[in-house]
Amino acid sequence: MIDFMIPFAEDRSEPYYEQIYHYIREEIRAGRIHAGERLPSTRLLAEKLGVSRSTTQMAYDQLVAEGYLEARPYRGYYTAEIRQMLDFPVPPGEREAEKGRQPDQTIPSAGGTPDAAAGDGKIDFSPFGIDLGHFPFSAWRKLSRDILREENRDLFASGDPQGEQNLRASVRDYLMGSRGIDCSPDQIVIGAGTEYLMMLVTQLTGLRRIAMENPTYRQASRVIARLGHQVVPVELDKHGMRDDLLEASGADMAYIMPSHQFPTGAVMSAPRRQAMLRWASAVPGRYLIEDDYDSEFRYRGLPIPSMFGADRSGRVIYLGTFSQSVAPAIRVSYLVLPPELTEQYNAIRGEFSPTVSRVDQEILARFLAGGLFERHLNRMRRIYRAKHDQLLAELAPLRDRFTISGDQAGLHILLESQYGRSEPEMIQKAAEADVKIYGVSDYFLRPAVSRTVLLGYANLSEEKIQEGCRRLWKILKE
Amino acid sequence: MIDFMIPFAEDRSEPYYEQIYHYIREEIRAGRIHAGERLPSTRLLAEKLGVSRSTTQMAYDQLVAEGYLEARPYRGYYTAEIRQMLDFPVPPGEREAEKGRQPDQTIPSAGGTPDAAAGDGKIDFSPFGIDLGHFPFSAWRKLSRDILREENRDLFASGDPQGEQNLRASVRDYLMGSRGIDCSPDQIVIGAGTEYLMMLVTQLTGLRRIAMENPTYRQASRVIARLGHQVVPVELDKHGMRDDLLEASGADMAYIMPSHQFPTGAVMSAPRRQAMLRWASAVPGRYLIEDDYDSEFRYRGLPIPSMFGADRSGRVIYLGTFSQSVAPAIRVSYLVLPPELTEQYNAIRGEFSPTVSRVDQEILARFLAGGLFERHLNRMRRIYRAKHDQLLAELAPLRDRFTISGDQAGLHILLESQYGRSEPEMIQKAAEADVKIYGVSDYFLRPAVSRTVLLGYANLSEEKIQEGCRRLWKILKE
Repeated sequence: MIDFMIPFAEDRSEPYYEQIYHYIREEIRAGRIHAGERLPSTRLLAEKLGVSRSTTQMAYDQLVAEGYLEARPYRGYYTAEIRQMLDFPVPPGEREAEKGRQPDQTIPSAGGTPDAAAGDGKIDFSPFGIDLGHFPFSAWRKLSRDILREENRDLFASGDPQGEQNLRASVRDYLMGSRGIDCSPDQIVIGAGTEYLMMLVTQLTGLRRIAMENPTYRQASRVIARLGHQVVPVELDKHGMRDDLLEASGADMAYIMPSHQFPTGAVMSAPRRQAMLRWASAVPGRYLIEDDYDSEFRYRGLPIPSMFGADRSGRVIYLGTFSQSVAPAIRVSYLVLPPELTEQYNAIRGEFSPTVSRVDQEILARFLAGGLFERHLNRMRRIYRAKHDQLLAELAPLRDRFTISGDQAGLHILLESQYGRSEPEMIQKAAEADVKIYGVSDYFLRPAVSRTVLLGYANLSEEKIQEGCRRLWKILKE
Repeated sequence: MIDFMIPFAEDRSEPYYEQIYHYIREEIRAGRIHAGERLPSTRLLAEKLGVSRSTTQMAYDQLVAEGYLEARPYRGYYTAEIRQMLDFPVPPGEREAEKGRQPDQTIPSAGGTPDAAAGDGKIDFSPFGIDLGHFPFSAWRKLSRDILREENRDLFASGDPQGEQNLRASVRDYLMGSRGIDCSPDQIVIGAGTEYLMMLVTQLTGLRRIAMENPTYRQASRVIARLGHQVVPVELDKHGMRDDLLEASGADMAYIMPSHQFPTGAVMSAPRRQAMLRWASAVPGRYLIEDDYDSEFRYRGLPIPSMFGADRSGRVIYLGTFSQSVAPAIRVSYLVLPPELTEQYNAIRGEFSPTVSRVDQEILARFLAGGLFERHLNRMRRIYRAKHDQLLAELAPLRDRFTISGDQAGLHILLESQYGRSEPEMIQKAAEADVKIYGVSDYFLRPAVSRTVLLGYANLSEEKIQEGCRRLWKILKE
């Protein structure tokens, strides 16, 4: 077991857990901690550094989420194979497909119908719900009123097809601060939803053979297919989309959700990210589409860094949305284009028209710039985290028979039966008790047999979560 | 010369000119007035019926615009070849291509940048301008305020991908009253602009060989090409897109602007409409896309009926927009699908997301339903008509050297030199006098030599129009 002392910054400008995280990450990256080495336990390290154990736990969790460390049950934390991955792809045999595990939760960017908690008795664990009870309605209304002043008549004239400059500047600042993306507003294109933006991407890249994670967000795969692209399903393992299968697939573009895969909730590991970036830069014209639809809702640890921020060869197209983070009916999404595609876009931008009204763009720009967005996010993160924690606690009695995953982020968790319960059986049983749960098999691009169900909680009250879980105990304990 | 008496309705429920129009139209359709027959002059008919001459003139103008009558200079009005067209296509030899004549004006639905009247001295006759000085700002603001009430929190939840029901119902009522379209709200799909809706059409029809009028709105042709369709330019004659060339082109879809072609301003004649509909219904799977972008701005006579309303075989896809009629920044357009495509759309609608925010949809729905839209349209029609009349009057001194066309509708007119002045020469000369005018050659899908320029007037004041025309006299009279 390796041993180290972390030199904390005296000014405490960075929380301890972030300092621990950064220190260990740099040691691994620099090769000073070798792959396969065991790290001190969270308790030991906490004692040594004079911090609480939850602090070291948070740092380790983050490193695991990003793939720098591996947590081996009853054994401890080990450094992952990151160095080797940089130079030699690990032979396929060494990777074990472990479909739909790692995980957390989600809400897809192209919004499904929000199946709110329905009638009296019925409890709907929809993974597409959103809690709108805390939408900052009066702030939004005030912004709207301010903007609709006589002076702003120009807001009804035709706008910039790329999106208004001040909204793009606000998005840039947000991406810089929250997602480690250092881009110019010229690289950002505002659009009315993922479908429109995928159409725009298609116009820039031409028709492609697009690899998609299996399982994935099916709506996206259908829209991509109908745009004329060929969709190739590529399996996941615990690191994310398998790069060996991706290479073999003959795809020249890959659509991935590295921060928080839907529906598995998996976070793509650091070595796999590097492998994906290597794949993209190996052949001219290859691209990765990074769908970062809900990176805002991570409840513990640092946010997972974006791949766009880590990309040095201009091969990542970033896709973000305000549908989850602000509200589903705010139809504002955005692309961040790499430099080469930005140039191409500039050559043809005059041929496009804006898709979001200028009033809405202006409201959102001020919502972002004035700090309201951040406050709203922090609030929603607290609210969702409380619901998430409650759901996990209520599900505890099922832990001997089910693997619960997808925690610490997003808006749903996954429940996988360890005793051969099938997905349709669980859904059927739950329905008999007036509880609606969702099968993961809907999201597979190839026919799949599943023992896993999704439970969303965003739109459920504390009481509903409690009552729903009680009903599930009875059914699923049997 | 034929002679007839028109039995006016005693209750005067319909204005005289409409009654005259309807009567003659029915006589022609029924074959009681034969093709090639000469009608009484407007003066004679007016005397006979005891109405004013402007009344008979309006009725005749409408019948000419719709292709039922032909106006032959110094000779009078003759019935067009409508009966024959119903049964036997007129041989190509009998049609004379008369590119870019008939006309009026326009503003394209996919909005170009509004080049407002610029600095002091400069006068910009942009065909893409819009007069926002009369936008019903306070009514719009009031609707917005009413809607953003605490009770309407649901407006921020995910909406109907097809568009909100009440907006679709309002659009249906409008189309019924103004465009002769009898459809169900289920056939209407709301979207954020023409590009998005064309993407949606593509997803329903698959990739096609799409015939487009030459010249046409270039932005649309580029978007359509980049969606993966093959664009085939088809020449116009005075009736509209040549159906013989369309048939020969091998296209299986045609994108047309029958009410008011851009940029020529031509109105597709009734026989040609029938020929187009015959073309579409002759082979399963053929479709016409009817882009009706500015049908609202017709200054004299009845509105030109839509082709969708006349279609009996379900082959017309109607494309409308509020970008011109309300404001360019209101990014709301819509499709009306024929029954077969509606069914197809229903099968996949769950896979799409809305592209217009619900708040905006609700504002627009109330704007339409409450009569505000109609009032706004009437007002803008008066304003634009006054500018249009002024521009034509100011250009009168040029009539001996130029053919002026595109009048009575839209937001621009065309000026065609009769004495060999080239388009670039005119633009250059005008620029030297600080006047910006626009060449029609930009809109040809094949390289073209042009002697025609466009003059838009929507965004110019009375003084600017006067001053601009004075400068043009000096330059163009020489």
